[in-house]
Amino acid sequence: MEFIYGKNPVKEALTACSRTFYEIMISREKADDITSGLSGIPVHTLSKQELDRIAKTRFHQGVVAKVSRYRYASLSSLLDLPLVVLLDCVEDPQNLGSIIRSAFALADAGIIIPENRAASITPAVVKASAGATEHAKIARVTNLRMAAKELKSAGYWVVGLDAAGTMPLSGIPSYDKTALLLGGEDTGIRKGMEKEVDILAYISMRGSFNSLNVANSAAIALYELASRSRR
Amino acid sequence: MEFIYGKNPVKEALTACSRTFYEIMISREKADDITSGLSGIPVHTLSKQELDRIAKTRFHQGVVAKVSRYRYASLSSLLDLPLVVLLDCVEDPQNLGSIIRSAFALADAGIIIPENRAASITPAVVKASAGATEHAKIARVTNLRMAAKELKSAGYWVVGLDAAGTMPLSGIPSYDKTALLLGGEDTGIRKGMEKEVDILAYISMRGSFNSLNVANSAAIALYELASRSRR
Repeated sequence: MEFIYGKNPVKEALTACSRTFYEIMISREKADDITSGLSGIPVHTLSKQELDRIAKTRFHQGVVAKVSRYRYASLSSLLDLPLVVLLDCVEDPQNLGSIIRSAFALADAGIIIPENRAASITPAVVKASAGATEHAKIARVTNLRMAAKELKSAGYWVVGLDAAGTMPLSGIPSYDKTALLLGGEDTGIRKGMEKEVDILAYISMRGSFNSLNVANSAAIALYELASRSRR
Repeated sequence: MEFIYGKNPVKEALTACSRTFYEIMISREKADDITSGLSGIPVHTLSKQELDRIAKTRFHQGVVAKVSRYRYASLSSLLDLPLVVLLDCVEDPQNLGSIIRSAFALADAGIIIPENRAASITPAVVKASAGATEHAKIARVTNLRMAAKELKSAGYWVVGLDAAGTMPLSGIPSYDKTALLLGGEDTGIRKGMEKEVDILAYISMRGSFNSLNVANSAAIALYELASRSRR
């Protein structure tokens, strides 16, 4: 059981039927829009302060829902998707949520995250994803390198993204199945994972500052690969 | 006078000579790397708790600097850049910092922000930009619409980015001078600003979720326009 919050997250969880809803809590001002047409879910009106306390944040937009915990997809259920994203140790919930949102919006891509040293799908990530977590197939694995090997056996080409890459992103061939590998905020792609990379791509930067936020790099790569895969 | 924090922000401010440095404060553990080779700037070693209090955040990475306030560029000094970004009411410091980082890394683009109802260049924005604020030309104007008019007089085409756009981003012609207009997190491009738009572009989304974070949209558009402008 956990508390998700925010208008889009709660709306998307309702639409996707991704959770069991035990209770919806709204602030007095928001009493109408989100809860219209709900049946069978108890709705309670609380003060902003009470919602702050339950959601453990001020950024709930007046809507908090008590729901069942996030349910991850199995790795095998992702293996028919043309594009999956492997995240090696992305630790910031904002970045993780934002990458899931881009992956799902730009390409219906699946996402694979490791269990250790990485953010998991917490309510803050659900919020940062604008609820995309509720629709996207997200697998959480104990060993990301084993997952990469399994993807390769299933016909995926592993494209790593790194400033030290050898091919510009725009030069990546169109594969039937691509696994985009992104490193964490501080660590980049780790040594062990590097061995599973088929092509190491870089984003062409024409400015005088060679540094992008990981979520923005991901958005660019997903945009490029999504357009590529359907040409 | 203000306190900027984080390794990259302080390093970039030193490199860019963008600020007067009054004092650098470091935690005991970080006593060596950032301050080697500094001359004439007093360096003090403080506890993590003291740095937390001065920086008003935990995310200072053991480095805080007391510096002169951020100095904006004049609008006229941006008018020779091939690409500028107009931000209509981006309110989240993370998003603003992240957009400045992408704009400068991908395209040496200038940035124009309005004075009202928008984030300004605070230390949190400097941190989120990884210090790109210290190098980039950023103008702050009282009236964004007047700024757009001035850009148009100077030969810029104003390309708005909106889900309701009429042309895919990849179809935008190569202009000598492009002004990319982005709306805020909640409001999008406002009515008054819409009138200044020459072309309203959209990002092709091939997934089943039509929603991107503004900083990620910006990164994609900057990537596309930067590659376009040099072809």
